[in-house]
Amino acid sequence: MRVQQVKQQKYGFSRTVDGAFEEATERTREALKKEGFGVLSEIRLDEKLKEKLGVDFRRYVILGACNPPLAYKALQEEINIGLLLPCNVIVYQSDDKNKSVVAAIDAQAMLSVVGENHALNEVANDANERLRKAIEQI
Amino acid sequence: MRVQQVKQQKYGFSRTVDGAFEEATERTREALKKEGFGVLSEIRLDEKLKEKLGVDFRRYVILGACNPPLAYKALQEEINIGLLLPCNVIVYQSDDKNKSVVAAIDAQAMLSVVGENHALNEVANDANERLRKAIEQI
Repeated sequence: MRVQQVKQQKYGFSRTVDGAFEEATERTREALKKEGFGVLSEIRLDEKLKEKLGVDFRRYVILGACNPPLAYKALQEEINIGLLLPCNVIVYQSDDKNKSVVAAIDAQAMLSVVGENHALNEVANDANERLRKAIEQI
Repeated sequence: MRVQQVKQQKYGFSRTVDGAFEEATERTREALKKEGFGVLSEIRLDEKLKEKLGVDFRRYVILGACNPPLAYKALQEEINIGLLLPCNVIVYQSDDKNKSVVAAIDAQAMLSVVGENHALNEVANDANERLRKAIEQI
């Protein structure tokens, strides 16, 4: 099995993993849990697009991952930070249906829109380290 | 009744509205619906913080708002855009409990992290106009 490296993208970390969509999604949930993230929301984007627009789209889920102590720290610094929470993690079917793409938001890139704040910066760093570790172990 | 203007913040539009938390949340949902946004996720942040950390926090909800045609356009341009979806709208109790703060993410500011893309830019503009209108009418 060839292990694909985690790719740093402009606003996230992504990786193509072996395994079809449902299996990869399950493994993603487990990896997030190990790194202290609960999944607070789950949006099956392809199902929503089918329901609302009648279009077919590749299987695609948005998981809203939240590490409660980090979220609490961030909220104490900046009450409106809920606009950037939870941390999105996506899983979607690759062009090869036996593989899936997983990606997590880059919390640091997101925070760049909030402006300089040392404490928030630390929180984002911590979140990123955990998200990256989670993506690596899927 | 003094109507507070919509404030442009670094990464969102916010407004303080009359009405306690539950009522303001209901009005926010209605306003979003009028502007073509469905609410795909709802996170009661104060309840989660109580459950996970045992701390008391002001009433606070994160609504995941999605306009399906806009989301579909964005996804066709950029498959990883799910990392920035749905558009977050928050409602929380003001210091004066008879008032609430509502705020929506600035989709344009979010997209600044993705980089230049004319079609995505149009989608973000459209989303922002609708979000701003929704916040104005709550």
